[in-house]
Amino acid sequence: MDWEALRGQFHLPKGVIYLDGNSLGPMPRAVPVRVGDVMEEWADLLIRGWNEGDGGGGWMGWPGRIGDRIARLIGAAEGTVTVGDTLSIRVYQAVASALHLAGPERAVVLSDEGNFPSDLYMAEGLVSTLGRGELRVVPPEAVMDALTEEVSVLMLTQVDYRTGRMHDMAALDRAAKAKGIVTVWDLAHSAGAHEVDVTAAGADFAVGCTYKYLNAGPGAPAFIYVRPELQDRVRPALAGWLGHARPFAFELGYAPGEGIDRMRVGTPPVLQLAALDAALDVWDAVDMGQLRARSLALSGRFASAVAARCPTLTPALAPDVPRGSQVSLRHPEGYAIVQALIARGVIGDFRAPDILRFGFTPLFLSEADVDAAVAHLAEVMEREEYAQDRFRTRRAVT
Amino acid sequence: MDWEALRGQFHLPKGVIYLDGNSLGPMPRAVPVRVGDVMEEWADLLIRGWNEGDGGGGWMGWPGRIGDRIARLIGAAEGTVTVGDTLSIRVYQAVASALHLAGPERAVVLSDEGNFPSDLYMAEGLVSTLGRGELRVVPPEAVMDALTEEVSVLMLTQVDYRTGRMHDMAALDRAAKAKGIVTVWDLAHSAGAHEVDVTAAGADFAVGCTYKYLNAGPGAPAFIYVRPELQDRVRPALAGWLGHARPFAFELGYAPGEGIDRMRVGTPPVLQLAALDAALDVWDAVDMGQLRARSLALSGRFASAVAARCPTLTPALAPDVPRGSQVSLRHPEGYAIVQALIARGVIGDFRAPDILRFGFTPLFLSEADVDAAVAHLAEVMEREEYAQDRFRTRRAVT
Repeated sequence: MDWEALRGQFHLPKGVIYLDGNSLGPMPRAVPVRVGDVMEEWADLLIRGWNEGDGGGGWMGWPGRIGDRIARLIGAAEGTVTVGDTLSIRVYQAVASALHLAGPERAVVLSDEGNFPSDLYMAEGLVSTLGRGELRVVPPEAVMDALTEEVSVLMLTQVDYRTGRMHDMAALDRAAKAKGIVTVWDLAHSAGAHEVDVTAAGADFAVGCTYKYLNAGPGAPAFIYVRPELQDRVRPALAGWLGHARPFAFELGYAPGEGIDRMRVGTPPVLQLAALDAALDVWDAVDMGQLRARSLALSGRFASAVAARCPTLTPALAPDVPRGSQVSLRHPEGYAIVQALIARGVIGDFRAPDILRFGFTPLFLSEADVDAAVAHLAEVMEREEYAQDRFRTRRAVT
Repeated sequence: MDWEALRGQFHLPKGVIYLDGNSLGPMPRAVPVRVGDVMEEWADLLIRGWNEGDGGGGWMGWPGRIGDRIARLIGAAEGTVTVGDTLSIRVYQAVASALHLAGPERAVVLSDEGNFPSDLYMAEGLVSTLGRGELRVVPPEAVMDALTEEVSVLMLTQVDYRTGRMHDMAALDRAAKAKGIVTVWDLAHSAGAHEVDVTAAGADFAVGCTYKYLNAGPGAPAFIYVRPELQDRVRPALAGWLGHARPFAFELGYAPGEGIDRMRVGTPPVLQLAALDAALDVWDAVDMGQLRARSLALSGRFASAVAARCPTLTPALAPDVPRGSQVSLRHPEGYAIVQALIARGVIGDFRAPDILRFGFTPLFLSEADVDAAVAHLAEVMEREEYAQDRFRTRRAVT
């Protein structure tokens, strides 16, 4: 693949080495043009945009059309992914439907301590609202053994947002299925980061966001996948009108739409969808196998060089643990080290209590970026730059 | 107020009389500039936009800051409104929290046949998911008598999306309170359409969308209001990380945030929020009392002229019934009549089975628009233009 051409498709501020594409991807150059186009459609077509926008196809069909573009990146078939709402909402939808499929006899949702907290909170909120069942949270390495007959739903994020540790989706899905457990995978740190094959793994539900590796912008819409065999058995907890079989008949009672469409809820966010659609253009030229190889090469190069030059930074994972497209390090001064790096133009991020997190996104990063980032990090550590007060003052979002 | 100056703040396509601002408002001229600005912030600030975007205040604070701007338009105090997600999601949030506040002894959600179907579907989905309780739907005029001791939550849309009939919010709230019933008001056709005072009415929860009278664009974020006295007792069903007391501590267990912040769920949609923020600029110069007077003058002018010139079009409401900022007419050929009008540049819309719906939005409509619209409608009826096949072919979104 032509990595230089891919990099050229992004707006990258001068003097910045951006190792935080795993938190918020940079802006693809195609985005402002497309968002401008859709605002013109709004201005000129007004209400008719729902039927005639998107260059004629109508904005109303975007969640499915864009869902199909994401499907290719996670090994899903056409017609199995839809887009909209936030990832937290998608988690709730998936877990609520999974609990219903699992049946009323058992209501333990199993998750792990490496899951993103919002996923745990949403499941906790669901269980409280139901007034029955239990959210059980175990260490990541204990998940396999915790798959007992009591468990109804296994809800995991494949790649740990802090450490980058990667679960074996296929193995866990196999073990879950053997016990009649319905699976819900959060692919927030997977989609666009490495090869994913939800079909081969047999995942029942998968959800993810699009503002990280997919570069669709702050607050970009989330996606949800439902295994084809389950789609017509799924009862939506969030039974919105656009998931209805006949939304524009305005019937008083709910009747779920066909297939994945029943996971739609309310009116789709057209401006954000335009940005997402433009961001996905970059992916048309990307082979996920080659992307993964380069991601491992770049992150491996970083990890080895840091191990050699920064002995006080501890890797968050042992070398033999499978990981996503990030490298995480631990240090008691993690927050201040990240701030000192940012002051030098190397942007990573910090996750409490002590994790320095660096994302390696081959679409716009090169070996030269990696080498320069290591050089900066080594200087910050050698000179103890992080000890300055200005780097220790905490901000709201870190 | 300077109506001509207000009208000048909108992009209005030439040759169009837009009587559908109650479905999707036209684009305020300030929107593309502001959305362009926020895309530049994304491009240049990258992840730091969450803290430093919005010209320095940070995107993360937008839901509350923009919520305060909407609060003024619905008679709510500062710190009682937040923004994000779709209206359907906000309905679910409000009803789930209201059911919890009402206590476990009773679980009837009362609504009416004039409610927007998605609100009914969301409540139906909630009740099915809970596996207890009941959604009870009565005719609009029967609501007051149906407020019995069995009812836990009263969920109504103040202004009927089809007919424009307006509920007496204060009277129904008073009657509900006397029976210990928690109230949830959908203000989709109220916010920006007429004076609303949720504080004086004593409403417990209120929700609404911003793409109708507030003109924030297709799929613009919704809002939710919680009465100040209830805020710290509300248990969020959709317990997302941004509603957590300490979202960036990444704790494993949920702890609700202070006040209205606990109704936040996931990552806010920054592009759509920029559009909403720009759209609200128009409202800074608007006095809601004067807006209401002009809305009634324009819609009254339309209704009287239609009554005189189009005898086969039946008003959907008796003249003495309070209504919002729309006029609805009935005709068996309603769909085709609306299509024939659209072909003439007069855009209203159709709602099954037989309603022609016209919105009167004083920010960008004049008496001349109203008179021209009536003249077109009279010609369509006199010449029976609607009988042409091309106007009878249904489209997906009407």
